[in-house]
Amino acid sequence: MRLYAGLMSKVTGKSPLVFAFGRRTDGHADMRDVLGGKGANLAEMSRIGLPVPPGFTIAAEACNHFHAHDGDLPGGLLDEVEVALAEVEEQQGRCFGDAGNPLLLSVRSGARESMPGMMDTILNLGLNDATVQALAERTSDARFAWDCYRRFLQMYGGVVLGVRASSAHLPDPFEDVLAAARRMAAVQSDGDLDAEALMQVASRFRDLIEARTGEPFPQQPQAQLWGAIRAVFRSWMNERAVLYRQRYRIPRDWGTAVTVQAMVFGNLDDASATGVAFTRDPATGEKTLYGEYLVRAQGEDVVSGARTPRPIAEMANEVPAIHRELDEVRQTLEQRLHDMQDFEFTVESGRLYVLQTRNGKRTGPAAVRIGVEMHDEGLIDRATALLKIPADAMDALLVPVFDPEALGNATQIAAGLPAGPGAASGHVVFTSDEAQRQARAGNHVILCRVETSPEDLRGMLHADGIVTTRGGVSSHAALVARQLGKVCVCGATSIRIDYAERALTVGDVVVEEGDVISVDGATGAIYAGAIASTDSEVRRVLSGRREAAGSAAFARYRTVMDWADECRRLRVRTNADTPQMARQAIEYGAEGIGLCRTEHMFFGGERIDTMRQMILAADETQRRDALAGLLPFQRQDFTALFRTMAGRPVTIRLLDPPLHEFLPADERVRHALAEKLGLSIDYIAERTRALTEENPMLGCRGCRLGILYPEITEMQARAIFEAAIAASSGADAVAVAPEIMVPLVGFAEELADQTAIVRRVAEEVMADAGREVDYSVGTMIEVPRAAITADEIARVAEFFSFGTNDLTQMTLGLSRDDMGQFFDSYVEKEIYAGNPFASLDEAGVGRLVTEAVRLGTGERPDLKLGICGEHGGDAASIDFCHRAGLDYVSCSPGRVPAARLAAAQAALRAAQTSR
Amino acid sequence: MRLYAGLMSKVTGKSPLVFAFGRRTDGHADMRDVLGGKGANLAEMSRIGLPVPPGFTIAAEACNHFHAHDGDLPGGLLDEVEVALAEVEEQQGRCFGDAGNPLLLSVRSGARESMPGMMDTILNLGLNDATVQALAERTSDARFAWDCYRRFLQMYGGVVLGVRASSAHLPDPFEDVLAAARRMAAVQSDGDLDAEALMQVASRFRDLIEARTGEPFPQQPQAQLWGAIRAVFRSWMNERAVLYRQRYRIPRDWGTAVTVQAMVFGNLDDASATGVAFTRDPATGEKTLYGEYLVRAQGEDVVSGARTPRPIAEMANEVPAIHRELDEVRQTLEQRLHDMQDFEFTVESGRLYVLQTRNGKRTGPAAVRIGVEMHDEGLIDRATALLKIPADAMDALLVPVFDPEALGNATQIAAGLPAGPGAASGHVVFTSDEAQRQARAGNHVILCRVETSPEDLRGMLHADGIVTTRGGVSSHAALVARQLGKVCVCGATSIRIDYAERALTVGDVVVEEGDVISVDGATGAIYAGAIASTDSEVRRVLSGRREAAGSAAFARYRTVMDWADECRRLRVRTNADTPQMARQAIEYGAEGIGLCRTEHMFFGGERIDTMRQMILAADETQRRDALAGLLPFQRQDFTALFRTMAGRPVTIRLLDPPLHEFLPADERVRHALAEKLGLSIDYIAERTRALTEENPMLGCRGCRLGILYPEITEMQARAIFEAAIAASSGADAVAVAPEIMVPLVGFAEELADQTAIVRRVAEEVMADAGREVDYSVGTMIEVPRAAITADEIARVAEFFSFGTNDLTQMTLGLSRDDMGQFFDSYVEKEIYAGNPFASLDEAGVGRLVTEAVRLGTGERPDLKLGICGEHGGDAASIDFCHRAGLDYVSCSPGRVPAARLAAAQAALRAAQTSR
Repeated sequence: MRLYAGLMSKVTGKSPLVFAFGRRTDGHADMRDVLGGKGANLAEMSRIGLPVPPGFTIAAEACNHFHAHDGDLPGGLLDEVEVALAEVEEQQGRCFGDAGNPLLLSVRSGARESMPGMMDTILNLGLNDATVQALAERTSDARFAWDCYRRFLQMYGGVVLGVRASSAHLPDPFEDVLAAARRMAAVQSDGDLDAEALMQVASRFRDLIEARTGEPFPQQPQAQLWGAIRAVFRSWMNERAVLYRQRYRIPRDWGTAVTVQAMVFGNLDDASATGVAFTRDPATGEKTLYGEYLVRAQGEDVVSGARTPRPIAEMANEVPAIHRELDEVRQTLEQRLHDMQDFEFTVESGRLYVLQTRNGKRTGPAAVRIGVEMHDEGLIDRATALLKIPADAMDALLVPVFDPEALGNATQIAAGLPAGPGAASGHVVFTSDEAQRQARAGNHVILCRVETSPEDLRGMLHADGIVTTRGGVSSHAALVARQLGKVCVCGATSIRIDYAERALTVGDVVVEEGDVISVDGATGAIYAGAIASTDSEVRRVLSGRREAAGSAAFARYRTVMDWADECRRLRVRTNADTPQMARQAIEYGAEGIGLCRTEHMFFGGERIDTMRQMILAADETQRRDALAGLLPFQRQDFTALFRTMAGRPVTIRLLDPPLHEFLPADERVRHALAEKLGLSIDYIAERTRALTEENPMLGCRGCRLGILYPEITEMQARAIFEAAIAASSGADAVAVAPEIMVPLVGFAEELADQTAIVRRVAEEVMADAGREVDYSVGTMIEVPRAAITADEIARVAEFFSFGTNDLTQMTLGLSRDDMGQFFDSYVEKEIYAGNPFASLDEAGVGRLVTEAVRLGTGERPDLKLGICGEHGGDAASIDFCHRAGLDYVSCSPGRVPAARLAAAQAALRAAQTSR
Repeated sequence: MRLYAGLMSKVTGKSPLVFAFGRRTDGHADMRDVLGGKGANLAEMSRIGLPVPPGFTIAAEACNHFHAHDGDLPGGLLDEVEVALAEVEEQQGRCFGDAGNPLLLSVRSGARESMPGMMDTILNLGLNDATVQALAERTSDARFAWDCYRRFLQMYGGVVLGVRASSAHLPDPFEDVLAAARRMAAVQSDGDLDAEALMQVASRFRDLIEARTGEPFPQQPQAQLWGAIRAVFRSWMNERAVLYRQRYRIPRDWGTAVTVQAMVFGNLDDASATGVAFTRDPATGEKTLYGEYLVRAQGEDVVSGARTPRPIAEMANEVPAIHRELDEVRQTLEQRLHDMQDFEFTVESGRLYVLQTRNGKRTGPAAVRIGVEMHDEGLIDRATALLKIPADAMDALLVPVFDPEALGNATQIAAGLPAGPGAASGHVVFTSDEAQRQARAGNHVILCRVETSPEDLRGMLHADGIVTTRGGVSSHAALVARQLGKVCVCGATSIRIDYAERALTVGDVVVEEGDVISVDGATGAIYAGAIASTDSEVRRVLSGRREAAGSAAFARYRTVMDWADECRRLRVRTNADTPQMARQAIEYGAEGIGLCRTEHMFFGGERIDTMRQMILAADETQRRDALAGLLPFQRQDFTALFRTMAGRPVTIRLLDPPLHEFLPADERVRHALAEKLGLSIDYIAERTRALTEENPMLGCRGCRLGILYPEITEMQARAIFEAAIAASSGADAVAVAPEIMVPLVGFAEELADQTAIVRRVAEEVMADAGREVDYSVGTMIEVPRAAITADEIARVAEFFSFGTNDLTQMTLGLSRDDMGQFFDSYVEKEIYAGNPFASLDEAGVGRLVTEAVRLGTGERPDLKLGICGEHGGDAASIDFCHRAGLDYVSCSPGRVPAARLAAAQAALRAAQTSR
């Protein structure tokens, strides 16, 4: 009986759960939701005639049923599998479990997106004490057959039956058996064990399994199959998978599909091989068949590293026909799947099979090149190209790189995943304290950790580069490093860190705390010693130190940015406090300043002392005197900033931090200050104590300062308007339209109070100058009450800028400085979907933003809306900002290109959704 | 030409602005919005035939026009006033400004509610160098006429023309002139100055005015009248009036009306008098004519205190006809105005005039008695009676009183306004520091301040009583004192406080810091030395120490509470941590515990050390050991609490404060602890440092503790369920249904995590006991995100309890501990409408509460809703809670009766609004 899935569903009245591929194919590439990525791609490949071993995929829905019903399988699944399996048997001319001519199977998991932590693959399923003999006879190779069997026992025993080392410190029990066999046979490698030895290993594996599970190893192939299917389902809920989903916000109800496929053997004979290929170079994006292969091997041999695979290019000479065939596969895959593919293949006795394909991982520069070139080749349209380039990829084009010459002489000691682009050399440190100490001493620092947690944030801030030995490109370290613009290599598994000894080892290389290493965030390579670095090619062109002509990298950068600028609705500004930062941001395409923090202007040199004099003033007169001393500095800073921005909008925030932050904590500095200002040390101590707060985050700062001391706001307003007059005068006059931003507003009355001061001073300065200056006054929305009463506030404010750092802290009742204690528990227990300070909490903070936009624009339709929290540089948050209807995002200068791309992607996604 | 206001409006097509009273009366008592309180009551009195001198009232709308148009008067006002004035002239048979038979006028301001800070009264308007002669002739009393004129010049010069002392330290310039005249005449009192002397004084007053204003004093009565009317309008926007409105949320656009009335003279002859009367005793509420009067005097003489007025009862013998007439006025006023009245009267040559009336201020006990008795007399219905009793009045019936015998021997040294009921004796202190020091030393403390601000909160917390020399019954001191249940006397103006000398003086009595005084918050009296106090009558009955029979006070208390309980929908619970508190609250009518703070159980005796051991534990095992030591204490506490509550609901909050709050700050205690626990002092210091946070309010506390250390939640849940089993077992078994409340939830996942632990432990305990316990698990809503995502949270929570203290802190970004620095500026600048921690910020926090209720009940219609922040005891906030649809409020035990009444008032107001 043969029934198509569609027909089956008609007969039973249910949706089909099993989808065949092979001679007949039920699925296709667009069915990822049902079949998972692997299953959908196998169906597609099969459909377009690529040589795929036949098989079938069990829909993810079955997984959900399994978990919703305490491990029960959905009704009808057994029948559907039986039908599909019979089709595979027929196509292969073999019979599952037949002792004479057995069909062997592989079983794989496959969710909508590739997910670490889930069960990967069981090979050679269907072997047992009887079928192993049949395989030996058919292949005339007993060693091969017993090797397959022992591999299967080992995989099945470990993955399905849970026979593993009882502790992470102990060796795998199967490996123990193999080691004993190698000792007995006096050989070095498993490949040197003969059939007899492998037969004994298989026997011991069966004993081991029975001893550990209390049940004999299941000899019935049907039992093996269902055991494997259930193991895939179970793996969807294992700890690592749950954690991963939590981190990347993958819904639990996606479930995983299961793909069952006829085995082919890359280890059958010398005309057999197995390999992995990319349709383009994943490191550079170059359009060429790229990959590696091993003769007479199964897939795991390529991955395990026991034998060194050979570059796929060598095939062209050795087996040109296969190489040609692979190149055709490459072209067919890209034509059909419209993305760079990473595919597995096996050659069984000279015949090529493609086992699976998926979109290939790639570096940032490769992502840009592939996107642009696939577009130019007509494979994808512009929107698709833009959506395929991760916004973070733009960073990779701009960060420093190691000088190629210096790199040639460097010694690589380890490698990990490229997680934060750039190149950094520095002293190895293992703790935040040491990172801070070294950085304060003026040294460059590479922070090395097994993993990072928010408690390491301080160390990461002080580090030039970050190395972890565990975790992938989406681990905490990677996310934060990209957020902070730090070089980062993750999951450098060959490194062992010993915190107690303050040293790391790779093989026999020992690196002690204080030793210098170099880290290449673009490639993941880690080198001993310092290596000179240099600006990237794109950066050199942007800053005018290289001609654009002849730079393919720059041409691609410009293409992507041009496309992005055409697509996006959101404007991109930058958070910059100095002309230097502003200049760099403009090179990167910033269209204005979204946040200039004036307090940064009060540090350094004599300014800080004048600032301290202001804070320590006994009365308003003394305070006004000190403020008069600060005025020229501020005016000069603003003038320079206005000139640099040359007519672009500049949002200036009035003084924000609590005053005690400006006072010296250090006893020596305090004494010097007392002497300089002619104050008693006791007076300074007393004032400092009086200014110290229980919860400074919720204390006397922001507009509260300006309301308590209106003369501070007056001075700042005067500096801004006098600078605006100065910058817009003379031969090199520029257009100036400052946007003055009042921080920490919770009540419309606060904003009205400060706005009145600003407008009064503006009138005075403009009257004195006899000139008008265009300006506007608005507010940060960073106190929840401001969002809730945004209608009232919009009656006064001409613009809103969402200060999502503080808004997150207050809305979540969560101090960023104090979350280290419990953040790990929260991530472990899946309470936070991610770090709410890295990516905006849409359900909570996002609702406040949306509501504030609705209320604010309801009151004032032309209200200008922006965001200036760190979320302004995060792609997911930028997507939210687009949907929320903001006018611009503002981020650190280095994030501007990424933000431009993310803004374009947001617009494209929104257009797709609304279609 | 005579036109009625209604006719006038028909002719001009505008609403009338001027409303006459007298022979013809346009207004009535319900026109307070238009005519102000005074104007409406004068119209009403005139309408019901009481002897009111004729006059007219200019509507408040004219005031708004004046301020909206830079001081322009509304069109038509001059004509309308002319018409109305002519009517007054006709009725009085005199002519305004006529040198032969002049009409004199009084001009008064009058808003919808009586408001300090606004212009009060100008008397004798219309006098000038000519009319003063006519007055002298008509009365045959030159001295009287010139005395009227000099008084008018003084008032008009000061109030309308702004001729005042240039600094608060200097004497009033008019008083200077008078003093010189007294010296010249060698007399002690102004009353001894003869006509000649007063004529000279008047002349010098005119010179003074011309010198200071640059203009001669306006001799034209019309100019005087419009000057006075404009001065009333201007006074609506003066600083004190603005501040007052801000504090008491009176809208600016109410405006003030102006009442112009024919003068009558209480100082004309010996058959003339002036006085103030109450329709019931404002101190006790007794139904009797009460008040005081002065023969041959004007109103200001009664108020100024220069002569001592006589009790009105004496009139019964001296002028029985007038006294009878007044008693009739008393009855007529109450019949018509349905409230206790405070009215001014003047007797001119034996003829009684009533000049104004208003609802009388009264003490709490008086308010209760008047409400109940007016109801019993059929004057008002039950709803009106309830609405007329301020909720705070209930407190006054319950607080301690001075022992009557001891009071008889006490020396009163000063008096102020009774602002926080009760009786307290204690050591005088002037600062929060000293209050804290004395209180810690075990002494009772009376905090004396000129005024209080939030910076004094610490001192107020430690004080038994509070005295201020400035500010009324609605000042900061009064509001906070009532909130905290402290005895308070405000505005004791005869006291001078010298902070530098640390002493207060009243006349020649000097009280130094540390001396003992006694304060009666029910009467406002302040006594030297200590006075024994005793429980109030109502309290003695409630606690079973006195029979209810024969206690009129208790009967009234019970009547009001019974009425309230019949009307209210909101349940009233209490915040109580101990059986003692719970017992008291039950006596006061609490229907359950809304908040039991378990952390309070960890202080004291060996518990605190076991708690510290738990906090200092190096690992989970040590922590579990310490927790096992805490379990018996908690179980015992909960058992006692359940027994006390005898089946009423009990909401228990899991551990909330940051752990470092439990660790000793004191070095000596730390050493003792180190020794006791066998830990190094360095270890304790290190752990304390590690637990110290930048912003503890937003740090590791609340459910974050239970998520980080699930064993804490386990122990607490176990203690609760074991106690529930114990209390509901045995001979004296009570019903128990604990409500377990998880604090600081921001994410539904947090609540789910903690709920799972609680439910698991519940199952274990119940299985062990073989018994079921009814219980529910819910959460505080105190983090803004919890309110925003209340739908998600309600999927897990069985109840919400709004923790509006923290919700206010986070929503407003405002730390209660740190607001002292700027709070005064905020109140001065009218930014906060009041203290958001005393009365709930409806526009901000209130919207979050409303939204959380909507989202929560949308998800779970039977969600139980309560409030347990301090707002739960505040009448205005309780009104909000009713409107927001909460099920109960929870407040401190002493506030329960007030909350019951406030809940009833909320229900009644809501019913009125919905009609």
